[in-house]
Amino acid sequence: MALKPLADRVVIKLVEAEETTRGGIILPDNAKEKPQVAEVVAVGPGGLVDGKEVQMYLQPGQKVIASKYAGTEVKVDGEEYTIVRQNDILAVVE
Amino acid sequence: MALKPLADRVVIKLVEAEETTRGGIILPDNAKEKPQVAEVVAVGPGGLVDGKEVQMYLQPGQKVIASKYAGTEVKVDGEEYTIVRQNDILAVVE
Amino acid sequence: MALKPLADRVVIKLVEAEETTRGGIILPDNAKEKPQVAEVVAVGPGGLVDGKEVQMYLQPGQKVIASKYAGTEVKVDGEEYTIVRQNDILAVVE
Amino acid sequence: MALKPLADRVVIKLVEAEETTRGGIILPDNAKEKPQVAEVVAVGPGGLVDGKEVQMYLQPGQKVIASKYAGTEVKVDGEEYTIVRQNDILAVVE
Amino acid sequence: MALKPLADRVVIKLVEAEETTRGGIILPDNAKEKPQVAEVVAVGPGGLVDGKEVQMYLQPGQKVIASKYAGTEVKVDGEEYTIVRQNDILAVVE
Amino acid sequence: MALKPLADRVVIKLVEAEETTRGGIILPDNAKEKPQVAEVVAVGPGGLVDGKEVQMYLQPGQKVIASKYAGTEVKVDGEEYTIVRQNDILAVVE
Amino acid sequence: MALKPLADRVVIKLVEAEETTRGGIILPDNAKEKPQVAEVVAVGPGGLVDGKEVQMYLQPGQKVIASKYAGTEVKVDGEEYTIVRQNDILAVVE
Repeated sequence: MALKPLADRVVIKLVEAEETTRGGIILPDNAKEKPQVAEVVAVGPGGLVDGKEVQMYLQPGQKVIASKYAGTEVKVDGEEYTIVRQNDILAVVE
Repeated sequence: MALKPLADRVVIKLVEAEETTRGGIILPDNAKEKPQVAEVVAVGPGGLVDGKEVQMYLQPGQKVIASKYAGTEVKVDGEEYTIVRQNDILAVVE
Repeated sequence: MALKPLADRVVIKLVEAEETTRGGIILPDNAKEKPQVAEVVAVGPGGLVDGKEVQMYLQPGQKVIASKYAGTEVKVDGEEYTIVRQNDILAVVE
Repeated sequence: MALKPLADRVVIKLVEAEETTRGGIILPDNAKEKPQVAEVVAVGPGGLVDGKEVQMYLQPGQKVIASKYAGTEVKVDGEEYTIVRQNDILAVVE
Repeated sequence: MALKPLADRVVIKLVEAEETTRGGIILPDNAKEKPQVAEVVAVGPGGLVDGKEVQMYLQPGQKVIASKYAGTEVKVDGEEYTIVRQNDILAVVE
Repeated sequence: MALKPLADRVVIKLVEAEETTRGGIILPDNAKEKPQVAEVVAVGPGGLVDGKEVQMYLQPGQKVIASKYAGTEVKVDGEEYTIVRQNDILAVVE
Repeated sequence: MALKPLADRVVIKLVEAEETTRGGIILPDNAKEKPQVAEVVAVGPGGLVDGKEVQMYLQPGQKVIASKYAGTEVKVDGEEYTIVRQNDILAVVE
């Protein structure tokens, strides 16, 4: 069972805080309960969104930082995902 | 008796939580009382909406995840439906 | 005496709850005091509204579902009407 | 002394509640203290308003229903008027 | 010392309430402490404002009615003025 | 050390209230703690701002009146400046 | 490990208050707990953002003043950064 995001949306999976720490990234204290580093799982097709052409530049597998509070959380097959607009992804972590 | 959505609207029918569980999808706790997984029942014609051309890409029968809080609930012939804008549908579940 | 709606506005007359029930449509509990099913009584000419071209696709006599809270209520010759924008009409009931 | 409305504005004069009743129009209870039926007294020239071309379709002498709460009230030579945008006029009463 | 308004702004000087009464214009009670009738003192050059072309149609010396609450008050050489956008001027009084 | 404003921004330096009084300009009482008269110190290059072309018409050295509450205050080499958008400058004082 | 900002975003690193003082820049008291002077660390590619073409004019290494409250803070390899939109950068400090 898979989530196929629509329009300019992206499905991301938050990276566990522990894993984040091992990778060298720690979020500031006020963001502790909701880690922002996530992995891109699926990318929508883009196209006309609210009358404006949107091109998707993200790829599944990329590690990204998402805007706090953005998106909708869902659980599929026991895994938690967040669906956000591509524009709510602030940066890629390499 | 049928609901024919106008403009960029879509009629969806929420999938029961039990059925959702059997299908492997469970929503997080804070969304329990309003399941987000729904089936597309009818799709509007699209066209000019608020001065912007909208093309409809959803099909009746698709399982989708709708944005929480979006839409208007109505009951037709004893069945409850929600009318949302296509842009409030976040992803297709396959 | 008649109401001629301007621009993209539509005059609708709410259908009584009893009649609605006979027709097989019942609104959910939280909408009880303001039934949403209405009949289109008059349709404005459309045209440029807030700088955007609007085409009217509704016809007098159609049964429609209007967005809750939308519109302005007036009474003409003892009959109550609601004036809404066409875009506040969510679906046609057939 | 006369009021010449600017841009897309219209000067209207509210019709007295008594006169309204004789004419067959009664407003609902919650609108009692501010009758919505008015006569168009003067119409602005239209033109570019906030970057959008506006054409004026109202004529002095028309009876109209104005959106509640819209407009600014002024008193000229002892008479009270309201200045509204043309788009705040919902319908013509004929 | 003179105020030269920029872009689509207009410098107006409120007309004293007494003078207003002699001229036959009285504002409603709820506007008593801030008279709306004013004389145009200076008019900006118009041009591109927020990406939209604005043409100025007001002239110094015109008596106008300004939208309440609009504008910024300043005092130059002991005289109080208000700087408003041209679009906050509702009507010309003739 | 110098501040070079970006896009449609302007660096202004508030003129001291005393100096203002000598120059014949006094602000009304409710603006006492934050004088609005300022001198333009530096002007940004303009260009595309939020998708709209902005041309800069202010010059360093001009005395201007800025919209109250607009801008961000900074201190450089012991001098306080305010950075505002050009559109927050209401008028030039000559 | 590096942060690559997306679209019109810029990664900045706040300059320590002490260092700022040595450089001759002191922020006003009400901005003490969040210094605004920062160094540009990485600049996004620009391009179409919300349907509008954005060109990036900032360069890594520039000292800038950022709008207070703008941006999202993250910590990478023990260093704190802020990700802001280019348009939230007010001025370059030279």
